[in-house]
Amino acid sequence: MKLTIMNLRASYLILFLFGFGTVFGQEIKSPNGEMQLAFSLDAAGAPTYQLNFKNKHVIKSSRLGFDLKNDSTDLIQGFQIINSSESTFDETWTPVWGEESEIRNHHQELLVELMHQASKRKMNIRFRLFDTGLGFRYEFPVQENMGHFVITEELSQFAMTGDHTAFWIPGDYDTQEYDYTESKLSEIRGLMETAITPNASQTPFSETGVQTSLMMKSTDGLYINIHEAALIDYPAMHVELDDRAMVFQSHLTPDAQGDKGYLLTPAQTPWRTVIVGEKAGDILASRITYNLNEPSKIEDTSWIKPMKYVGVWWEMITGQSSWSYTDELKAVKLGVTDFSTVKPNGRHGATTENVKKHIDFAAEHGFDGVLVEGWNIGWEDWFGNSKDYVFDFVTPYPDFDLDGITAYAKEKGVQMIMHHETSSSVRNYERHLDQAYQLMKDYGYPAVKSGYVGDMLPRGEYHYSQWLVNHYQYAVEKAAEYHIMVNAHEAVRPTGVARTWPNLIANESARGTEYQAFGGNKANHVTILPFTRQIGGPMDYTPGVFEMDVFNGSHVNSTLANQLALYVTMYSPLQMAADYPENYMRFPDAFQFIKDVALDWEKSLYLEAEPGYYLTVARKAKDTGEWFVGNVNGFEGRTGEVKFDFLDADKTYLAEIYSDTADAHYKTNPQAYEIRRVAVDANSVLKQFSAPGGGYAIRIREASKEDLKGVKKLK
Amino acid sequence: MKLTIMNLRASYLILFLFGFGTVFGQEIKSPNGEMQLAFSLDAAGAPTYQLNFKNKHVIKSSRLGFDLKNDSTDLIQGFQIINSSESTFDETWTPVWGEESEIRNHHQELLVELMHQASKRKMNIRFRLFDTGLGFRYEFPVQENMGHFVITEELSQFAMTGDHTAFWIPGDYDTQEYDYTESKLSEIRGLMETAITPNASQTPFSETGVQTSLMMKSTDGLYINIHEAALIDYPAMHVELDDRAMVFQSHLTPDAQGDKGYLLTPAQTPWRTVIVGEKAGDILASRITYNLNEPSKIEDTSWIKPMKYVGVWWEMITGQSSWSYTDELKAVKLGVTDFSTVKPNGRHGATTENVKKHIDFAAEHGFDGVLVEGWNIGWEDWFGNSKDYVFDFVTPYPDFDLDGITAYAKEKGVQMIMHHETSSSVRNYERHLDQAYQLMKDYGYPAVKSGYVGDMLPRGEYHYSQWLVNHYQYAVEKAAEYHIMVNAHEAVRPTGVARTWPNLIANESARGTEYQAFGGNKANHVTILPFTRQIGGPMDYTPGVFEMDVFNGSHVNSTLANQLALYVTMYSPLQMAADYPENYMRFPDAFQFIKDVALDWEKSLYLEAEPGYYLTVARKAKDTGEWFVGNVNGFEGRTGEVKFDFLDADKTYLAEIYSDTADAHYKTNPQAYEIRRVAVDANSVLKQFSAPGGGYAIRIREASKEDLKGVKKLK
Repeated sequence: MKLTIMNLRASYLILFLFGFGTVFGQEIKSPNGEMQLAFSLDAAGAPTYQLNFKNKHVIKSSRLGFDLKNDSTDLIQGFQIINSSESTFDETWTPVWGEESEIRNHHQELLVELMHQASKRKMNIRFRLFDTGLGFRYEFPVQENMGHFVITEELSQFAMTGDHTAFWIPGDYDTQEYDYTESKLSEIRGLMETAITPNASQTPFSETGVQTSLMMKSTDGLYINIHEAALIDYPAMHVELDDRAMVFQSHLTPDAQGDKGYLLTPAQTPWRTVIVGEKAGDILASRITYNLNEPSKIEDTSWIKPMKYVGVWWEMITGQSSWSYTDELKAVKLGVTDFSTVKPNGRHGATTENVKKHIDFAAEHGFDGVLVEGWNIGWEDWFGNSKDYVFDFVTPYPDFDLDGITAYAKEKGVQMIMHHETSSSVRNYERHLDQAYQLMKDYGYPAVKSGYVGDMLPRGEYHYSQWLVNHYQYAVEKAAEYHIMVNAHEAVRPTGVARTWPNLIANESARGTEYQAFGGNKANHVTILPFTRQIGGPMDYTPGVFEMDVFNGSHVNSTLANQLALYVTMYSPLQMAADYPENYMRFPDAFQFIKDVALDWEKSLYLEAEPGYYLTVARKAKDTGEWFVGNVNGFEGRTGEVKFDFLDADKTYLAEIYSDTADAHYKTNPQAYEIRRVAVDANSVLKQFSAPGGGYAIRIREASKEDLKGVKKLK
Repeated sequence: MKLTIMNLRASYLILFLFGFGTVFGQEIKSPNGEMQLAFSLDAAGAPTYQLNFKNKHVIKSSRLGFDLKNDSTDLIQGFQIINSSESTFDETWTPVWGEESEIRNHHQELLVELMHQASKRKMNIRFRLFDTGLGFRYEFPVQENMGHFVITEELSQFAMTGDHTAFWIPGDYDTQEYDYTESKLSEIRGLMETAITPNASQTPFSETGVQTSLMMKSTDGLYINIHEAALIDYPAMHVELDDRAMVFQSHLTPDAQGDKGYLLTPAQTPWRTVIVGEKAGDILASRITYNLNEPSKIEDTSWIKPMKYVGVWWEMITGQSSWSYTDELKAVKLGVTDFSTVKPNGRHGATTENVKKHIDFAAEHGFDGVLVEGWNIGWEDWFGNSKDYVFDFVTPYPDFDLDGITAYAKEKGVQMIMHHETSSSVRNYERHLDQAYQLMKDYGYPAVKSGYVGDMLPRGEYHYSQWLVNHYQYAVEKAAEYHIMVNAHEAVRPTGVARTWPNLIANESARGTEYQAFGGNKANHVTILPFTRQIGGPMDYTPGVFEMDVFNGSHVNSTLANQLALYVTMYSPLQMAADYPENYMRFPDAFQFIKDVALDWEKSLYLEAEPGYYLTVARKAKDTGEWFVGNVNGFEGRTGEVKFDFLDADKTYLAEIYSDTADAHYKTNPQAYEIRRVAVDANSVLKQFSAPGGGYAIRIREASKEDLKGVKKLK
């Protein structure tokens, strides 16, 4: 690890040329000089910034500031620069898990210290400029005239240079589970109504409000991504578009009373990030989001381990079995309702027998864990009732033998994954958190999938308000005390906080595979998620569905080969094989890939990328050195190319290619796949067809000539 | 303990005469036959009840029901009686502490089972009729057509028979800390604005809305009190007056969204109580409120012990010292702010030295405990900032030596009383509750004074909403796990829950002595509180102020003798001597009464009572058999009478009488007291003057002739 910090005091204003105009202000360049950031105060004393990449505008002059509550002097204009300083930072760090075994954090920093003249209040803006983009945040130091303050709105602007193409989902205070819409910025308003599909809890707020991470493509060939990093105790940011000026402005998630954030000095906002590249893959390769988060606060991380798992889950999602134990109860009163006397509905999924069957399957096929949902009492009335005391997280249904299952799993060498659905009753969850985690520790569960389905309690709060952002963080930090890994569903979209708390092993926080059973996802959904949702961290997308026509009649818009590819393209240290054991046994040759694919990586390469259309990723496994390639494809069939020049030049490899057949189609012929074994080396080039909604997956490992006997060489 | 339950099934309707009309319905009589309750459905099928006492109307025909949210069929009318049953209950139980060592629960019960015809939903109304009044509640059994439901409003009416005199405070969702107004019911509307005095958090809601317990007096000589019992997981009830019809209707405290209560079957409301008597003292003697609560859920109650205490508190209330350690900080960030480097303000009250002084004082004068406020970091910005992470309840200021003080108190045989001000940030409190209670256990603190000053977090919630009622109960039940007694200030007014959870040793929940330092209480305040606030349970009124002109210039509207009387008239198992040790040492003879007075009683007699004017109570100490008499007086001087016929007929006693002098006055001459020692027996009668805002206190103990040598006999 190398570390260089160079402080250049620059407390005077410099006159410089930037873009097409002349302004008074500061300018910095990224380490390679290609990214340029300019800061200045405009004539009214309002802070503004601009971002250029290779001398093209990325962000035109954009204002920065705050509208404060009960405050006559908002922090919008009338500022004076009292100091500014520049520094260089270069460090390489080692993540606990990830797409790369080492991450370089190399950036140029500009700290601008401002004084608001009327109120004599200090606000600093810290810019960090990387070769792949920009991060900036606001800081409020301890000071005489500012202690506690309430944010009515953050006024960070992102002025676009034109009517870009965007991959967006509706801004919403309560859900992120939307399909993406590809459109021009100018078309967002007209498409918003269609884009807002139903959800268990949703609060869209504007005709031009969209969520981050927002992926865009400019007509002059730049890929631009806006998101945030290190969202801690602050409301999540949306961006709202002024679609005449093509200027996005931050829109924070409000609390129940409409206020945005309660802060006290010393305070800092999350980082606002703009990632830029000439290729779409550059966005995926950028490590800005993690680099802007703090290093791990967990010292001993030895207990944090990637996991591949199966579960008693898809059968409930598809309607084949139920989370609940009985259909007799209109309401369940924990501690009062006697489950030993009610009539079981006969469809309960989390039975001891069914769980043991999954443990057997996991053990036989080398999975690390088994997730079981619906194991604890309370599922009869958990949804839609705004029920406060909804679960206790420790009491199993009568047909779930916690002790017996624990012993059985241990005997089989499989770990159980806990499930805590909170029903968004977060006070109740916090009240039970210690005993729930303690039970996990007592029974040896290493990880928990938590859920926040439905409207929030405290009632009136939103999923992404400061109150809830604070809660999700609380649950993760407390889990760390118990050495528990957290996979939070419906929690706020991640912002790289897993660098600091690597026990936040995954999140859902987007439209996952479950929607394939609720009418389906768009066939190109998975070509977009890595550019949007996954900018902030791993997603528990729960891939691996082999039977596309599910019990309730819904169709999974994906080919089987596409499902395999997701284990490579959708990075996560926690990967599920979502389908039933029976369905895997129908396709044991394809299932082999899920068993083989690695979970943790030394290196990741983004070979081909075009959001909405295709994505091809190659990753080298951390332990074995094997390579895996995944390709996912959009609506149209396409033949892509993989150059194997990432392989060691002097070696030969065996490649197992799981691909769509020529007639495969996500809708009409999804299970049409073929498996080829070919020999490859660094000079090989693969031309490979992917069907509509299809893709391919490749396992590549070093092989001797002996091993390759009878295996054809790929030309 | 005797227990008789007799079930009389009466599933048919009976025709009976009640009052002046003829209705179809049910009627029951209290055990002695003097109280009569009639239930019937009116022509529209709306449930109604009437209450008579000695053939006088107390409650005229009044409707019962609910307005439900999102429900086309409210539970208002269209009911049918499907069953009704009558039973008798007679049991004598032993409270852990209280005004009496045994309490008889003798009542006649009528359970009316109703079916709402349109919605096929069942609602039961359970009436319990005592010789001293009525309790009724709604019950929703488990049923096919009712699981979860949301109450928009409870529609329980209390139709008055005339324009009664009432002792009322404004209905308010956030504070109970008002002075009482005595007025005709018809005058409430006109007086409301004046009655609403400022408070740190307050939300009055109506020009005719008042709080319970509401004390009234009718022109035909009845004393009537409306309150509730067993308020558990339900919003607190106010009553709103239709001042043309003179009908009160329940008005529940809403949540942040305006809803009242979230219930699920089996559900029951708290009891609505109407206590009735021909003498005001009958209201005080009634044990309806406790009797309608469940028996203790704490099995081993040996750790629950009444306490007399002093504290580091009044000096902060009067402005002489501060809760906070420094004046330098605009904001405190727990875990970030370094208190070891800030400049102390030199006025901090909770210093080790000051605390040890109080421990010495407590030890010397036989007090059980010492309360210390402002001991833990966070007081610099605790109020008015809606601060979430405001206290951690475990980190002392640098000048408070927790270990040293604990050891010192132990050595001196004094127990420390913990203080947890939550600043109404209840999520934060719940997050820290376990560690805070654990610290108490580790350091041997037997009791905690908790506080809920300021507006609520979750923001938008109110102090008396279901959400918060649930919280206060949670804190008490969790405290019981740790064997901790709770004295909650600013929490919801008590409703007899201390029977079930006797570790709820006291509450504030009304305008206490602190207001004497904030401009003063009305001089007759303490003649009303026993009839209102104390119907629900003991109040930590913190009496014992000897110096009426306090540091900040405020004047305590009470004579010194009145202060002594409060230890008898204001029942509490937790009694503070609020003033400075120095002030007690200026009046050591008067202080002797505070040292002598008992805390727990075998028997209590209400000798003279007229709310707003005077109250004389005699109580027999549980252990020693000594008697104590207290008299508090209103605005006008008055000579009252105590007949000592409650003493054993064949014994002689020494009475020490602490009384106002003839020229005493709460405003101009409050410290004018005299102490007499006289001999009394069961035939003695005392005529005793009480000054305006004055009173007297008497200690009476058996004495031999020897003891009484030279002591005059009271004639």
